[in-house]
Order: sequence, then structure tokens, then C-alpha cells
Amino acid sequence: MSSQDLRAVTWTAAAEGAAPSLSLIDQTALPHALERLDVTTVDQLIDAIVRLVVRGAPAIGAAGGYGVALAMAQGEREGWDRARLDAEVARVRAARPTAVNLMVCVDRVAPLIGAGLPAVLAEADAIVREDLEANHAMGAFGADWLLKRLSVDRPLRILTHCNTGALATAGWGTALGVIRELHGRGRLEAVYADETRPLLQGARLTAWELAQEGIPHFVQADGAAAGTILRGEVDAAIVGADRIAANGDTANKVGTVGIALACAYAGIPFVVAAPTTTVDLATATGTDIEIELRSEDEVLEWGGVRTAPAGSRGHNPAFDVTPGSLVTGLVTERGVLEVGAGELPESGLS
Amino acid sequence: MSSQDLRAVTWTAAAEGAAPSLSLIDQTALPHALERLDVTTVDQLIDAIVRLVVRGAPAIGAAGGYGVALAMAQGEREGWDRARLDAEVARVRAARPTAVNLMVCVDRVAPLIGAGLPAVLAEADAIVREDLEANHAMGAFGADWLLKRLSVDRPLRILTHCNTGALATAGWGTALGVIRELHGRGRLEAVYADETRPLLQGARLTAWELAQEGIPHFVQADGAAAGTILRGEVDAAIVGADRIAANGDTANKVGTVGIALACAYAGIPFVVAAPTTTVDLATATGTDIEIELRSEDEVLEWGGVRTAPAGSRGHNPAFDVTPGSLVTGLVTERGVLEVGAGELPESGLS
Repeated sequence: MSSQDLRAVTWTAAAEGAAPSLSLIDQTALPHALERLDVTTVDQLIDAIVRLVVRGAPAIGAAGGYGVALAMAQGEREGWDRARLDAEVARVRAARPTAVNLMVCVDRVAPLIGAGLPAVLAEADAIVREDLEANHAMGAFGADWLLKRLSVDRPLRILTHCNTGALATAGWGTALGVIRELHGRGRLEAVYADETRPLLQGARLTAWELAQEGIPHFVQADGAAAGTILRGEVDAAIVGADRIAANGDTANKVGTVGIALACAYAGIPFVVAAPTTTVDLATATGTDIEIELRSEDEVLEWGGVRTAPAGSRGHNPAFDVTPGSLVTGLVTERGVLEVGAGELPESGLS
Repeated sequence: MSSQDLRAVTWTAAAEGAAPSLSLIDQTALPHALERLDVTTVDQLIDAIVRLVVRGAPAIGAAGGYGVALAMAQGEREGWDRARLDAEVARVRAARPTAVNLMVCVDRVAPLIGAGLPAVLAEADAIVREDLEANHAMGAFGADWLLKRLSVDRPLRILTHCNTGALATAGWGTALGVIRELHGRGRLEAVYADETRPLLQGARLTAWELAQEGIPHFVQADGAAAGTILRGEVDAAIVGADRIAANGDTANKVGTVGIALACAYAGIPFVVAAPTTTVDLATATGTDIEIELRSEDEVLEWGGVRTAPAGSRGHNPAFDVTPGSLVTGLVTERGVLEVGAGELPESGLS
């Protein structure tokens, strides 16, 4: 099976004697093993979201939608009243703070609780279907735009960060969907995949998806990205987004803003691919986006072995904010917004 | 013993029945063990340089100076003629390509071969002594300059990258020497130390030196640096250099140029601390500096365990080049050169 056909998040209806469950590809086990984890309770789902068994803003959103159904089924088994059910749904909604998709999807599905489980599941299914359709649309729009913008005859060399593929979405991918589309058109030479410390979503997940598709790629340290861009070794960078503020400021995996600055300096496109649902008009600017601080151990240890000295502290923001003025193109399912000039404005965040 | 008193590179004279040797702190074993490796042959020395047992441009330079003496002693034992000796010295000189210090130090000591081992050793000793003096001078000049430039009453929060401390030099440190000096003056709040993938010189070595001194510090992923700077969490960044071209373009550990771009965007100082011997007037611009490409395995594996998929390739440049225009201050043993405006110039490398 090609990785593009993977479904990171799938619902399994209740069978005789078994509770319904949400089946998640365990992304902590890749690239060494492709395993699924079936969760049947809210606690298990939140744990899976926090441990990044399921990760990637759209995939977490899909898990959140089905999470409402999971909570309903658990509440039915355990005799929760409506207040308890609402509280459990609110816990799912707050499992991670930065990506807006989780909140958006829970808020879309939860009003249907009164209509019953089939209605809730139908809405969660619709989220997945729409995300998949949006990803394919973004792939086509993004590839068209990049090829026109770069206007070169040779295949493109694209830098990407973190994982935005089938694993991070309902399927196909956002930024990686554009990359797949370029590959499908024979217009992709190679991908430079930042390893994405501390949890190596690039080295483990993006490289795995690219390897499954036979797409030529190089894994590099995150610190190598700016130099790779400034030396002219790539034609453009394309990444996903966890939340886009009303002014275009974009929260994405830590390390993204450094890539945007290097692209602006080198004069190459810095492209964000994200469905319009990622744009949060209730968030005015990037400074209003809560940046998740994760465990210090993620940077102080490796595979359970301490790498830093015993006395050292860690600083572990999981995301950063790229000023909208540095986003050359925002690829959505409706087309490409040319948000920023892609030029470096006056010093300081606007 | 405080880490500032460490000597990464020391010469041990021949004792009865034993060859003279160069004693190196094995920097691959830190922070878990402080061990020394004694090398007695050119092959052992080159292996130690390539494996980064000894690393940091000035420390490699010191090892190169003593390497000439080591080659002479080995040649004496093994009956080399002068041509063979010169060839072996040339091998030491070429052990790593990017840092200019190794070449400069070998070229300074080698002309004394004809004058005998004591003259060669005296010159190698002088290199170490001068580097140590230069580091203390840089510490004072750098601290003075930063405090004046930043003009704040509170202690400073400084970001650094890779390791530029006693381990990387003849002692004390370049960028870390400035940090030590600020700490000694009671003007340092905390250090943000980039972990410095792929080999974690920041998490392992800088954090270890800072912990030894009781200097508060946070280890962070390299990708976190730009966001930490843009969010205003640090007042300045200070790094070392492996080679500075005549136009001020600065080669340093991979990841450095991204920090420089973020500092320019945020409007905070980006400072390079390096002895004037690091300036290579024979190199016109940064594009003339050879960037060492190291083994792909360094980014594809961790502790001998493969982290990327089996089919993935790696891209592993060990250094990058920061345009001189982004260097706000170049701290040398003679004073501080205000190389670049620290502002972002027109798109593209000049």
C-alpha cells in the first residue's frame, strides 16, 4: 500500500460485545513499525493526542470529531449525564492548545450530540471526507502556482519541515500533498526534509512517506535548512500550519519561522499549505496564539537516555509563529492567497 | 575543577621508554565521562580530529601545532625522510577543511622543523598561550560592548550555538568566554544553548561547561532558536567562527546563519567572537569557503540506531556561511569590529 492511501484516523463501529473504537496509526512507532492503536475512552484518546500517537493539525481535528462520538459511547456505557459528557468533550477539545483544527472540529460535531450518535458520526465522517478533498485541491493549486511562479523547465527541489502528509491529515497531505502532486506530474527532483527535532517527525514520518512513494529525498538537521536555502540548493520551501491568525501570522512546528526568514533573504517562495479551516479569524495576530510548551525531557533525553548534563534545564516550545508578511503563498482548497510580499519588512514583528 | 580551567589539548614530553604524546579530552564521551585520549601518531591524531574527539576551530589549531611535533617524533622513531615528514604534516593540515585555524597553526609551526623539536614545541606552546590570552581579551571586549550596546540594567539573556568554550579552544572560550565574563560580572541571567544537531555539541558540551560553572541555562532544539529570538526571550546571540572571509562572511557550525537572520529581523545584536587569526584574507567571500560535508549517518542514525527509513539519504553540511552584513559585532582580541549594520539588506547574498 502506498502511504498516500493510509488513513491515520478511522472509526470502527461497535461490534457484538465490543465498544466502538477509534483506530489510530501509532506515529511514535514509525518508521520501524506500522501499528495501529485502538482507543475506546476519552482518557485513552487524550493520552494518544498528548503523546503524538496521532499528530498533525488536520489529523488531530479528525480525531477530535470522532472523539465526540467516542465520548458519547463511553457515556452511554458508564451512565454519564449531559454535564459530564460536555465536560469530557471539552477535555478532548483542550488536549493540545496550538492547532485550531481540534477546537474547530469538536465545535462542529458537538452540537449534534442531541441528534444522536449516527448524526455525530456522519459529521465526523464529513470532516474527514472534506479534508481529503481539500488536500487534493491544495495539491493541484499549489503545484500550479509553484510551477508558474518559479517558471523553470527542470524538476523542482523542495524543502519541507515536520510532517504534513497522509499521517498528519485525513489523507494525501497538505504541504506533502503539493509535493506528491509535483511528483505525480514528473516535476519533482528531490525533497529536503528537515528532521524536525525534538521528535523527528521529518526524519521518521515524512521520510517514511516519501520512501513509500519512491520520491527522492534527503533528511537534514533543522539547522541545515537556512544554509541549504541560501546556497541555492532548493527552489522553494513548503510547510503546513497549525493556526493562521487573521493577519496571516502562521503558527507551525518549531523551526518554521527560520525557514521563512531564509526564503525571504534568498528571494525564493515560502509557501504554507493549509485548509481555510486553519485560518482563525478570532485570533487577530500571531502573538495571540498560545504556543504549547512541551516536556523539557524531549530535548534533554534521547530514547530515554539523558544526553544533556544532569543539571541542565530544557526549553521546548513545540511551535513558532511566522509573520504573515513572510508567507509568499498560502495554498488553500479554494486557491492560493499571496499573503505577504515575501520580502523582508522593517525590523520587528508587525 | 571548574571547566574554565580545562585544557582540551596538552603535550606530554617523552618519558623513559615512552614516545611523547598529545593528550586530548575525548569530547565524544562528554557529558557522561571526562576522559583523555593520548595520541602518539599522525594517524591517531587525524582520526581524533575527524571523529571530533578534539573539535572547535582554535582547539583543532592547537592540536595541529602540536601535530607537527608529533609527526617529527614519529618520524624520528620510524626513520622518515624529510619528504615523508612533510607529507605527514600536510595530512594533519588537511584533516578538516573548513576551519582556517588548523591550516594557520600548522603553517606557523612547520617552518621550524629544521630548528628541531624544542623550537617546534615552543611555537606550539605559544599558540596555546596566545589563544588563551586572546580569549580573555575577547571576553572583556565582548562583555563591555554588549553591555554598552544593549544598555539595560537587568542581567542579560544570551543565545549561543554549538560549543565555543574551554573545550573548543586553548581554554576559557571565545563566545562562551564572553558569556563567562558576563557571568563573572553578575550581568548574566541565563543562556539559551542550541543543542546543535547532529552531534549535540550544545546539549553535551556547552551545557556541561555551563553546568560546571553554575551558569543558569536552557538547552533547546536548533529549530527553536529563531522563535526564541523573535519572541524577545533573549537580548543577543553570540557565536564563534571557523573562518571569516575578507568581506566579513563567517563560516560557523551549521545553524548559525538562521540565528543571524532572526537577530537581524528582531533587531538584536548578532555577535561573532573569534581571534583575528580566524580572519582569512586569502578568502575573498563566503562562497569561497569549502563547507565540509560529513557522513550521512550522522543525521540518519542516533547512537548507532537508525532513526530514518532504510531508503532515505542524508544531507549533512557541518557548517554554513553568515553574510558579513548580518554580523552586528565581531569581537576579537584587539577590540570589536562593527562589521555589518545588523540590518537586512536587499534580498540575496551580496
